[in-house]
Amino acid sequence: MKLRKKNRRIPGESPGTLREACDIPDEKIDISVMLYNASFVEEKITHNIDEALAFEKDDVVTWINIDGIRNHKMLEKIGAKYNLHPLLLEDISCNEQRPKLDVYDEHIFIVVKMLKFDTEEKGIIDEQVSFVLGKNYVLSFQEEDKKGDVFNPNRERLKGHKGKIRKSGADYLLYTLLDTIVDNYFIILEGIGGRIEELEDDLIADPSPKRLKVLYGLKREMIYLRKSVWPLREVINKMEKGETELLLPATQIFIRDVYDHTIQVIDTVESYRDVLASMVDIYMSSISNRMNSVIKVLTIISTIFIPLTFVAGVYGMNFDYMPELKWKYGYPVVWIFMIVSVGFMLMYFKKKKWL
Amino acid sequence: MKLRKKNRRIPGESPGTLREACDIPDEKIDISVMLYNASFVEEKITHNIDEALAFEKDDVVTWINIDGIRNHKMLEKIGAKYNLHPLLLEDISCNEQRPKLDVYDEHIFIVVKMLKFDTEEKGIIDEQVSFVLGKNYVLSFQEEDKKGDVFNPNRERLKGHKGKIRKSGADYLLYTLLDTIVDNYFIILEGIGGRIEELEDDLIADPSPKRLKVLYGLKREMIYLRKSVWPLREVINKMEKGETELLLPATQIFIRDVYDHTIQVIDTVESYRDVLASMVDIYMSSISNRMNSVIKVLTIISTIFIPLTFVAGVYGMNFDYMPELKWKYGYPVVWIFMIVSVGFMLMYFKKKKWL
Amino acid sequence: MKLRKKNRRIPGESPGTLREACDIPDEKIDISVMLYNASFVEEKITHNIDEALAFEKDDVVTWINIDGIRNHKMLEKIGAKYNLHPLLLEDISCNEQRPKLDVYDEHIFIVVKMLKFDTEEKGIIDEQVSFVLGKNYVLSFQEEDKKGDVFNPNRERLKGHKGKIRKSGADYLLYTLLDTIVDNYFIILEGIGGRIEELEDDLIADPSPKRLKVLYGLKREMIYLRKSVWPLREVINKMEKGETELLLPATQIFIRDVYDHTIQVIDTVESYRDVLASMVDIYMSSISNRMNSVIKVLTIISTIFIPLTFVAGVYGMNFDYMPELKWKYGYPVVWIFMIVSVGFMLMYFKKKKWL
Amino acid sequence: MKLRKKNRRIPGESPGTLREACDIPDEKIDISVMLYNASFVEEKITHNIDEALAFEKDDVVTWINIDGIRNHKMLEKIGAKYNLHPLLLEDISCNEQRPKLDVYDEHIFIVVKMLKFDTEEKGIIDEQVSFVLGKNYVLSFQEEDKKGDVFNPNRERLKGHKGKIRKSGADYLLYTLLDTIVDNYFIILEGIGGRIEELEDDLIADPSPKRLKVLYGLKREMIYLRKSVWPLREVINKMEKGETELLLPATQIFIRDVYDHTIQVIDTVESYRDVLASMVDIYMSSISNRMNSVIKVLTIISTIFIPLTFVAGVYGMNFDYMPELKWKYGYPVVWIFMIVSVGFMLMYFKKKKWL
Amino acid sequence: MKLRKKNRRIPGESPGTLREACDIPDEKIDISVMLYNASFVEEKITHNIDEALAFEKDDVVTWINIDGIRNHKMLEKIGAKYNLHPLLLEDISCNEQRPKLDVYDEHIFIVVKMLKFDTEEKGIIDEQVSFVLGKNYVLSFQEEDKKGDVFNPNRERLKGHKGKIRKSGADYLLYTLLDTIVDNYFIILEGIGGRIEELEDDLIADPSPKRLKVLYGLKREMIYLRKSVWPLREVINKMEKGETELLLPATQIFIRDVYDHTIQVIDTVESYRDVLASMVDIYMSSISNRMNSVIKVLTIISTIFIPLTFVAGVYGMNFDYMPELKWKYGYPVVWIFMIVSVGFMLMYFKKKKWL
Repeated sequence: MKLRKKNRRIPGESPGTLREACDIPDEKIDISVMLYNASFVEEKITHNIDEALAFEKDDVVTWINIDGIRNHKMLEKIGAKYNLHPLLLEDISCNEQRPKLDVYDEHIFIVVKMLKFDTEEKGIIDEQVSFVLGKNYVLSFQEEDKKGDVFNPNRERLKGHKGKIRKSGADYLLYTLLDTIVDNYFIILEGIGGRIEELEDDLIADPSPKRLKVLYGLKREMIYLRKSVWPLREVINKMEKGETELLLPATQIFIRDVYDHTIQVIDTVESYRDVLASMVDIYMSSISNRMNSVIKVLTIISTIFIPLTFVAGVYGMNFDYMPELKWKYGYPVVWIFMIVSVGFMLMYFKKKKWL
Repeated sequence: MKLRKKNRRIPGESPGTLREACDIPDEKIDISVMLYNASFVEEKITHNIDEALAFEKDDVVTWINIDGIRNHKMLEKIGAKYNLHPLLLEDISCNEQRPKLDVYDEHIFIVVKMLKFDTEEKGIIDEQVSFVLGKNYVLSFQEEDKKGDVFNPNRERLKGHKGKIRKSGADYLLYTLLDTIVDNYFIILEGIGGRIEELEDDLIADPSPKRLKVLYGLKREMIYLRKSVWPLREVINKMEKGETELLLPATQIFIRDVYDHTIQVIDTVESYRDVLASMVDIYMSSISNRMNSVIKVLTIISTIFIPLTFVAGVYGMNFDYMPELKWKYGYPVVWIFMIVSVGFMLMYFKKKKWL
Repeated sequence: MKLRKKNRRIPGESPGTLREACDIPDEKIDISVMLYNASFVEEKITHNIDEALAFEKDDVVTWINIDGIRNHKMLEKIGAKYNLHPLLLEDISCNEQRPKLDVYDEHIFIVVKMLKFDTEEKGIIDEQVSFVLGKNYVLSFQEEDKKGDVFNPNRERLKGHKGKIRKSGADYLLYTLLDTIVDNYFIILEGIGGRIEELEDDLIADPSPKRLKVLYGLKREMIYLRKSVWPLREVINKMEKGETELLLPATQIFIRDVYDHTIQVIDTVESYRDVLASMVDIYMSSISNRMNSVIKVLTIISTIFIPLTFVAGVYGMNFDYMPELKWKYGYPVVWIFMIVSVGFMLMYFKKKKWL
Repeated sequence: MKLRKKNRRIPGESPGTLREACDIPDEKIDISVMLYNASFVEEKITHNIDEALAFEKDDVVTWINIDGIRNHKMLEKIGAKYNLHPLLLEDISCNEQRPKLDVYDEHIFIVVKMLKFDTEEKGIIDEQVSFVLGKNYVLSFQEEDKKGDVFNPNRERLKGHKGKIRKSGADYLLYTLLDTIVDNYFIILEGIGGRIEELEDDLIADPSPKRLKVLYGLKREMIYLRKSVWPLREVINKMEKGETELLLPATQIFIRDVYDHTIQVIDTVESYRDVLASMVDIYMSSISNRMNSVIKVLTIISTIFIPLTFVAGVYGMNFDYMPELKWKYGYPVVWIFMIVSVGFMLMYFKKKKWL
Repeated sequence: MKLRKKNRRIPGESPGTLREACDIPDEKIDISVMLYNASFVEEKITHNIDEALAFEKDDVVTWINIDGIRNHKMLEKIGAKYNLHPLLLEDISCNEQRPKLDVYDEHIFIVVKMLKFDTEEKGIIDEQVSFVLGKNYVLSFQEEDKKGDVFNPNRERLKGHKGKIRKSGADYLLYTLLDTIVDNYFIILEGIGGRIEELEDDLIADPSPKRLKVLYGLKREMIYLRKSVWPLREVINKMEKGETELLLPATQIFIRDVYDHTIQVIDTVESYRDVLASMVDIYMSSISNRMNSVIKVLTIISTIFIPLTFVAGVYGMNFDYMPELKWKYGYPVVWIFMIVSVGFMLMYFKKKKWL
């Protein structure tokens, strides 16, 4: 994860202006519109916003999903049709938003972060997903222009008449989309959990600087995960508290379920942070332990051989009058003396538990 | 404790669907049904849910305890009989729930974690226990299919007419079951407390890497204990606050007692965390102290013998003109010089308190 | 302080049953009953609960103090007389309670921790003291069976007509008893403060592992003190908030004073914790500093003598053709060379501030 | 950032007195007055406060921006005209204020901190900006006497009829000014983010003391940023909560947007703090790792050569009776012995993964 | 600052008794009484409390300032005159109080801490100042018996008719006194800030144990400052919240100003704590860096000379058959070999960046 993306408004500029929609030129955008009620479902896939907005019907729930948010013409047209506030449109188009829920008169606006594991860069990437929930429509906006990957199961359920989704209103649809996103968090967390457990084993076996880098990377990921998840909790809590009439009581019970999942995600993130903090301590003391054992080897070798070398040095002196040198048993006695003192030292080290 | 078990819903799937009840095939499940009032008690043990549900009577409290939660047919039948929400059934069948209390119209749903010490793996394992409290029934769901071990004392009390349990309603039964679970926490904590005290003594006597691993293991256990206990507090607090009429005022006083115990558990967990955090410091400085003493030995030996070796080396030189070598007392004078300088060094080390 | 005492209920057992009053056989218990009003005071000391309960009078405040809580017959009799809930009796008899205040219909129940410094084991021990405050009576229960040591000054004041205690009701008596207990905390804290200051001086003078053990002991004591004091604050806060009519407004002002003292105790405990945390850092860096100075000595000695030894070694070689050896001034020139290089090294160390 | 600037009142002095306006002599001050409504806009730039105050018109919004706050004559005149409380004037003139919002009867007073990156000193500097919002006027006070740099885009928009600013009231103008300031925070944060990422790479490649200094500098900057940003949040929260009628509902929605941005700034600051805290750990263990590798080299060299030197020393002894010395193959055998033992040692180090 | 002063009540003693006024014998006390209104001001300085209390007048504000609090006769007389609660008098006389505000029926009682820098002991000392605010009087009590130093400016303003103080009531007087005290905090903080910045520079230049002691002293001072300042905030907040009618609305606005200053003090204290915490890290890693560089020197010297010494040792052996010794170029070849290997080693160190 990058510390900051460059997508900001220039200070002093007029707020709510969709200036070049965050600096990126027009793109091909993918729009999918689904109309459905209990007895009917129809989908239209197009690149043309006018066409998409014209595709409507009475007595149905309309779900417009748009992949690609930086086309300000498109945003303005949707804004005009659904009476969206300029600040809301600006929030959709800037992928720097913090998860939040804003209540407007006719609709509510929700921004959340979708998390994905980028297998190439081996890191987590986040993508902003925005929702507008109105009386009988849901608008969803995704950053990437890949065809609506993550919401595909929801689409299938709509088409396949699976579950209660077709019988329920737009609020239930919003719930299923949020639920899909939160469920994705668990997959991310499972991946991280696996990497933590792997690191744990490695850390004790081999506390090399390489491990530290992995550890640090995981810590940083948790910092950013946390930044995405905590505000999400507030968002869903606000929904559960029923600050808006757009969410029917029957849906509240499901929102409560998503809320529970969010809390679980937060709990897990916090636990991982605690575990990683402990692992730093382990790493630190593993290094110290290693150093300790290296120094012990040095000390043992030095303590044994430096005095012996001294003894050898003494009898290497060239004084004319050194009676020991003439003595027949001098040499073997010196050897015996040296072996005995080594023995004592080894005993000393044994006692100190260095060996 | 594993960082994560794999029991999750697939993102985007319909919520509240009991898909293969979390992926695990039909099992033999143990069902025990108890019917009782002040004057009457009867128990039926069966593997057949239909039989269990048919075993009923007027004017009694019904307690159905089920060991083995991943049989979705069974869950659906119970759900139909007791009018349980699909999400509630899903929560029962997935052992990944966070402790919580959900209030429904006709009943309340409680999820808690039962803790056990796994003597084989030498670690704490948790098991999800779910309760449904209705007007005159309690449903309890346990993960394992061992015969109702932990609730056996409660069963005995019911049969043996012990205490006020038989005279009270379903809410009091629920209280006794929760109380049993919370009391189990103390046993777990007592075990951990013992292990901490043991480690304390070991850590000062012998700060080897092995101890660190034990310390780290304890820290991790506390992290997960905490994750189980904190939400439990909220659950019981909600019960005490009387958010539901299913809990009679006479029972509230008992719930307050369980609440006190939960707080005590939390206090103890937090104290243990603090103690363990202090122990990391001890461990770290013990290592440093050890290193210090190793290096002192090295320094003392080197400081004494390296200069002496130099002196010996000097008189081992082969210059033709070295007057000391010819001198009769050269050799003994060198010895005296060396012994005196060793004496001075020992005094120096003494003064520095290295010896 | 022990991490846990073994005094718990067996999980699944009936709550509120005074089973063998926490496993300990009948003991001689000391009961003192005081009856007093503005014009009258009488005391009875007995071992017999029936006798104690029979000692009563109209229009007086009754204070029954019981030393020795594990006699369940006695507790049951008091319970019957004063209409105490079985859970309340259980809380009295188990010395594992967290400080708390429970409001019952006719009385309030308070559990606090009395702290004492055990001069033998050189540590703090805590003792549970329970109070029941009724309309015109106070029951106090102490763990130990030593004659009512800590409340003796209160007794004297009652007898000696000192202060306003005789003119006031049972609530004021309760206040004076609580006040006595909280004042005892200050004595404990003063003792700890002294030990911290002592350690501070020692730590800088001599950072030996022994100090660390003292430091760790103090840290642990603070952890347990904290566990006793924080809930006490809630207890007294609840009293001050006037959740019960048993505490008259005139007494509230005194309760506020105890509350202030409790906050002061907490403040002091937190400050001590902070101070101790800082001392760990000091200790750690003192060790590092010591190691640094040891290594400096090693390095200075090695850096000076190892090269010199090499030089001596060179001229100790036995090559047939070594012109320097024949040279008349070879020996003194080598000495001069060696002395000069030592000089340079000393200058280098001086510059590096190692000397 | 300096720990403290010296700009304080002397203790005991009368509050609300503009004594020499914080000790600094009269300066040239730059005043710009803008009058505008939907159809009209006029600007006057002057150094004379009387002239500025005389420049007024009916049915317009008046924006007076003053660069240079330490002229107490000027402040008194404005105070008299707009009925400002002496304490408010004192707050404007002292650049030590904490961000805050004070509600007065006729106007609200806001103090915020503007942040700038000082390219010369390579650090963040903060500047106090104060606002007074009245019924149809905004007064803004800036510390520096540089011509109104940061608000230039706002001025341009006013003149250029851009956005809805001209059609809205004084409250919307205040919003745009605050928004400009908050947007500036992002630029500062982006800069810091860049420096953190740079340091990250450097820290692993080369953990020299120089890096530590940079790290410490960043930590300190975050401490001071935090001190500026947290109270800002309260300020804007108070505005959003609508404690005053001066902010029209239509403007509230924009204030909410600024609030979101402020929260984002806080989130980022907190994340940076967490990242920097992790980096300290990295740095610490990098140092330890380096030391480890240095000591390993020492140990390997010593362990190999010290024993060999001893062997050589033994056969350098001058005993008359040393049979090995006479033996023809003595010399090559010693060499073989030495080479073999080096081989063993290398294998030992290989096994220990030191090589 | 001492960890604890010895000034406590004996546990179990009657509360509200002024026993020997905290153990210290009668002292000469300095009493100053000021009577003033808009048109009149008179001051009396005396040592006699009766005289002071007799000095009164109608339609004036009375300010009695007493230096020296441990004279219980005096306190009792004041208590009788102004109807002060015994607990209040006890709080005045014991200099161990936590800052607090107590509301009584006829007056409010405020305890705060005055901070001074003790230039002799080079540390901060605190002094307890108590205030009683009644309808038209303020009583202030200071610990020391130095003549009313800190409040002198206030006295001057009263006499000199400066500011609005003479026109306002007793509540405004109280405000000015509190304001004087809080302003003093900034002076203390400025001093500490200066010492922190000084230490910062020293720490990087020379991380000796001496610095650590200074650092630790500063940390401890912050701990105690914090203990004084946080409760002060509550005190002033309570005043601002207007819990009493004694503070007129016109004064509230000034109280809010003091509140802002208190928050600023707290912010600064917290920032200093953060800065000091970072400095510990710096110190720790500076030590490690130093150790690292010492060890590098040792390693370089050893790595270069130990192998060379070995080589010299080899050719110092006395074997009869050592062909190299006979060889004419043996000696110079050995030298060349040694010089070349030193060269390689230097290159190796260069590559490792140790040189």
